Amino acid sequence: MKALLAPQSIALVGASGDPARLTARAQIYLRKHGYTGALHPVNPRAPEILGERAYATVEDIPGEIDFAYILLNTEHVEGQIAAVAAKGAKVACILADGFAEAGPEGLARQQRCVDAAKAAGLRLLGPNSMGLINIPARIAVSVNAALEATSLPAGRIALVSQSGSMLGAIMSRGAARGMGFSHLIATGNEADLSAGEIAAMLLDDPGVDAVMLFLEAIRQPQHYAHAAWKAHQSGKPLIAYKLGRSPYGAELATSHTGALAGSDAAAEAFFRAHGILRATMLESFLELPAMAIARRPLACPHRAVSVLTTTGGGGAMVVDALGVAGIEARVPDGAASAALHAVNMHSHGRLLDMTLAGTKPERIEAAIRALDAAGDTDAIISVIGSSAQFRPADAVAGILAAAGDVRPLAAFLVPQADASLKLLAEAGIPAFRTPESLADAMRAYLDWRAPLTTPHVALPDITIPDAPDEADARDLFAALGLGSVYSRDLEAAHHFPVALKILSPDIAHKTEVGGVALNIPDAAALREAAAAMQARVAKAEPQARLSGFLIQPMAKGLAEVILGFRRDPEVGPVVLLGAGGVLAELHRDVALRLAPLHEAEAREMIAEVRALRVIEGWRGLPRGDVEGLVKAIVAVSRLAALPEIHEAEINPLMIHHEGLTVADAWVVRT
Amino acid sequence: MKALLAPQSIALVGASGDPARLTARAQIYLRKHGYTGALHPVNPRAPEILGERAYATVEDIPGEIDFAYILLNTEHVEGQIAAVAAKGAKVACILADGFAEAGPEGLARQQRCVDAAKAAGLRLLGPNSMGLINIPARIAVSVNAALEATSLPAGRIALVSQSGSMLGAIMSRGAARGMGFSHLIATGNEADLSAGEIAAMLLDDPGVDAVMLFLEAIRQPQHYAHAAWKAHQSGKPLIAYKLGRSPYGAELATSHTGALAGSDAAAEAFFRAHGILRATMLESFLELPAMAIARRPLACPHRAVSVLTTTGGGGAMVVDALGVAGIEARVPDGAASAALHAVNMHSHGRLLDMTLAGTKPERIEAAIRALDAAGDTDAIISVIGSSAQFRPADAVAGILAAAGDVRPLAAFLVPQADASLKLLAEAGIPAFRTPESLADAMRAYLDWRAPLTTPHVALPDITIPDAPDEADARDLFAALGLGSVYSRDLEAAHHFPVALKILSPDIAHKTEVGGVALNIPDAAALREAAAAMQARVAKAEPQARLSGFLIQPMAKGLAEVILGFRRDPEVGPVVLLGAGGVLAELHRDVALRLAPLHEAEAREMIAEVRALRVIEGWRGLPRGDVEGLVKAIVAVSRLAALPEIHEAEINPLMIHHEGLTVADAWVVRT
Repeated sequence: MKALLAPQSIALVGASGDPARLTARAQIYLRKHGYTGALHPVNPRAPEILGERAYATVEDIPGEIDFAYILLNTEHVEGQIAAVAAKGAKVACILADGFAEAGPEGLARQQRCVDAAKAAGLRLLGPNSMGLINIPARIAVSVNAALEATSLPAGRIALVSQSGSMLGAIMSRGAARGMGFSHLIATGNEADLSAGEIAAMLLDDPGVDAVMLFLEAIRQPQHYAHAAWKAHQSGKPLIAYKLGRSPYGAELATSHTGALAGSDAAAEAFFRAHGILRATMLESFLELPAMAIARRPLACPHRAVSVLTTTGGGGAMVVDALGVAGIEARVPDGAASAALHAVNMHSHGRLLDMTLAGTKPERIEAAIRALDAAGDTDAIISVIGSSAQFRPADAVAGILAAAGDVRPLAAFLVPQADASLKLLAEAGIPAFRTPESLADAMRAYLDWRAPLTTPHVALPDITIPDAPDEADARDLFAALGLGSVYSRDLEAAHHFPVALKILSPDIAHKTEVGGVALNIPDAAALREAAAAMQARVAKAEPQARLSGFLIQPMAKGLAEVILGFRRDPEVGPVVLLGAGGVLAELHRDVALRLAPLHEAEAREMIAEVRALRVIEGWRGLPRGDVEGLVKAIVAVSRLAALPEIHEAEINPLMIHHEGLTVADAWVVRT
Repeated sequence: MKALLAPQSIALVGASGDPARLTARAQIYLRKHGYTGALHPVNPRAPEILGERAYATVEDIPGEIDFAYILLNTEHVEGQIAAVAAKGAKVACILADGFAEAGPEGLARQQRCVDAAKAAGLRLLGPNSMGLINIPARIAVSVNAALEATSLPAGRIALVSQSGSMLGAIMSRGAARGMGFSHLIATGNEADLSAGEIAAMLLDDPGVDAVMLFLEAIRQPQHYAHAAWKAHQSGKPLIAYKLGRSPYGAELATSHTGALAGSDAAAEAFFRAHGILRATMLESFLELPAMAIARRPLACPHRAVSVLTTTGGGGAMVVDALGVAGIEARVPDGAASAALHAVNMHSHGRLLDMTLAGTKPERIEAAIRALDAAGDTDAIISVIGSSAQFRPADAVAGILAAAGDVRPLAAFLVPQADASLKLLAEAGIPAFRTPESLADAMRAYLDWRAPLTTPHVALPDITIPDAPDEADARDLFAALGLGSVYSRDLEAAHHFPVALKILSPDIAHKTEVGGVALNIPDAAALREAAAAMQARVAKAEPQARLSGFLIQPMAKGLAEVILGFRRDPEVGPVVLLGAGGVLAELHRDVALRLAPLHEAEAREMIAEVRALRVIEGWRGLPRGDVEGLVKAIVAVSRLAALPEIHEAEINPLMIHHEGLTVADAWVVRT
């Protein structure tokens, strides 16, 4: 950890003496920003580089090294791993790209590097890593052009980014608004060290108050889960911005990093389950540390805030943007109204307009303290008008005086007001330039919760054939407690009318090949239908193995759902609940959670699927078996414990007034 | 118009000599910012104010005045209207609040001012107006604290804002990024002059290239429609930011301005129909002028862009944010690929990464020109990394060189890069600080289209009784060409099975009082059902007038829709199409347009309602009568021409393979 976060002896392998070259920058920046440890440029063609003693090979360096930054071209990296490890380095950082993201050959090259490093006890940062910056320790071992800056903004927020260029972007944006950083680390392809693993290390550092993660893909989700747990234990927030919210973005993140893209819904479920705050805007990402540092997730958020303002239009913008994010600017309750009254202020709505009450600092402070008496809001937002532009110290004094004693406090500055932004940021108060980023940060804060525990799952005693058909899928679900009557025996059918289906491990869409017949009234018709179906399917799919028939009673529920399990390529096992029927797909009316899960989360999923309000007493419609559905979701989520199950789904699952019916099911082996 | 936009003789009625007071500011700011016209403070208690000759009354002012800014308290405003008009003023601006937004008494007071002004031939700005600023003419007749600024950013963009404080907010934000303004005008309550009317005047000014509107409510929609038409004719964009996207925001905008809130969907339809660009973020509002000035709405946008970048992570953020907004960052097509090839560049995906090709200005310029060869994108986006921070002139030079010759060009600056932002803004190139505001501005630009013409509607020959029941509503729709078989005569029923309903102008929800019976098999059962229904309804609703029965054949469609007409309090007549059935309301699957409309818009509405894909051949489902539905939407939209119709709805309208059935209908008189 120390070798990674604060190396005291650094080798720059492939350092250049030409200051115009990228490979010269690490040395230049290390010196420029005050590195005091040992520095060893390695270059076979120069005994001296930029005025410092250079070595022809890593081997030639006297003494041990902590950290090697390998600046060589792609094809020369592999050859340095062993040499670097032999010198005692604990970490090697690789600058070059052309590895996993560059196709099978690059992937193989990357794997060889990893294998060599592992064998030698060396950890890798990258490939495709811009290096790392530890500002308080004055270690800037990076080629990032952001280090052209004269001075670096020191502080207590750490950033780990899979994108190297975002180090500079976030550092410069943070600096402009009074935000300081402890570490900025670029993980690139993450052949070995992931952002999650590094985040966990950073959380141990007493100089770090929060860790920000800029992610293109989640690799090794267990590292993030572990970091999130540590973050919760230590009371330090873990905050993520992740690409892939749109399919185009997901495709790009994948091609850029060589990782497989999962669904954004799965990533979202992952962040929420582990108590990681997620920003969906660049600016809210920057403000979320101030919002969350020294705070805990709210056990039961009201999703409401108190808003005071010195300007009507600016305040209205905030109320509107919060509303779009599902957060109510709430009228002061009895307690807050009384407290306002006591200081001779009166609110007539969702916005406490201070223009009448006076906007002097002591009035703003009094208003904030009065609004803090409210029993039904989660935060206070102070909107500041033109004073923020012309009298910054005055404009923020009331907020500074109240902050710390009251619930979370944030500010929105209506005009351009850089000095006010800085004053607030330096005091650790989240201060926003736009109503939209404020709303996004507030949403993320109110969505934040303590990491969920993973329920212990006793493995059901199930074996799945190599090529499972529907009957096998039904047996699987039955083993989880979700059995519905069916038979494979044409002669044993009773409870007419029945449905008849062909069984085959090779046919995914039975209806399309004539493999389903519904409403069969009696035994004679059933025999007839079976014979016709056999002939029809054999003709339509001559290659398919037919494993018989499945007969089930016709059923109709109050509602139909899709209940599925799958393994997301990024975050792993998830369970998915969606409305059934032809319109469900059009409306994307789906809830998703990590698997396995607890009943409370299953209840949340049901509440999220809009169409399921029809079984919860909406508009006087008959109630369905919600408790049964809760148990079914939990049961299906237990498939996480069966590694041989890749995907499984009940579609549809019929919800009755009492009980559920599995109307169709399938399973795919890993 | 000149008296409003460039007054040369101004009276400040109620001017104060105490510089600390709000009412002193207009005079201070006029002088500070170089006003050279005649200035007449009016104050009965001081012969001189801030070193200038003052008058006891307006009457005492020598000569005529163009413009009076009435700075007096609410209750003293009314008394000045006649005096100001008598002095020849064409416009009076009222600072005080306490009018329409302050309840019935204030509303009455406002109306008296309007009546007095109208009688005297005076136009009113406000009440609750911060005044106006004409920067090129050096006229700052406003109390807005933003005028504390040493100098004001002159330019060619005009802003009209219902919120006074937003003048300063937008001016300061614009100034910080190199944007200049011609006029900034606060309209407040708009008792007389609306933002729309002023926008139309500004569009006539050759010094104005675009008009921005900051709106809390739309009053007098015809003014905006007229301004939008002029904007289109003159090729100057009209750009709006409107509050009320959330219910809380709408409520606040209403209480703040005394206007009635319509639905945001109606406002959105209004802006689109009239070719007004709408920003949904504060920052995109500021950048949209640069995006749209000297451009025309695209006839047939691809909703796709070309993206080049000097940094992978920053570029990926843009692609992702655009994707969330429904805009594709498109892989270069054949033509663009060939053009790139010709300058020795190669794109491998949605992002042209320049790190290999070189980021020198001439390379960026060449890349932009090559991407401009694409036949399938609407704009080019250049993403700039750290060079934007450290070498602004270099970073933007390639863009500046290409701009003007190529399709719309926008930039996103990944680090904090104020100097680069300014250089681009000064060249009229939209430059963004966040990927989200870029995506919002691009979405607004691609949604922009030429104002729609209003179809000529021949008034159907219809009279509606004062208290219409369902049969009257059906007759109304039949007169529009949407008749479905029904009868009021129990004995005349054939085509069994039938549905029976009670008729009453007083019963909105027939089912709830037992006023609907379905699937009645024959004449005898019908008679029996009618007798039972009569008794049941009479008992449930003893006060309701019962006007008989309605008998209709049972019908089942391929899909059900709600087709409605109503008058939005802000924008006026609208037509609404929604999915029918119990889930429709849960999914809010609705399209809305201004009424009356053309068939092309009706087709767009059908395409917007997700559930209607089931009648458009989706998943092999049987096709419904889409053309019939198009005609039905157009027909219902014609109700706009019948002022006595306030609301009317068919719910549900059944869509068959051929033809439609009105299954239920109602109408509300104005």
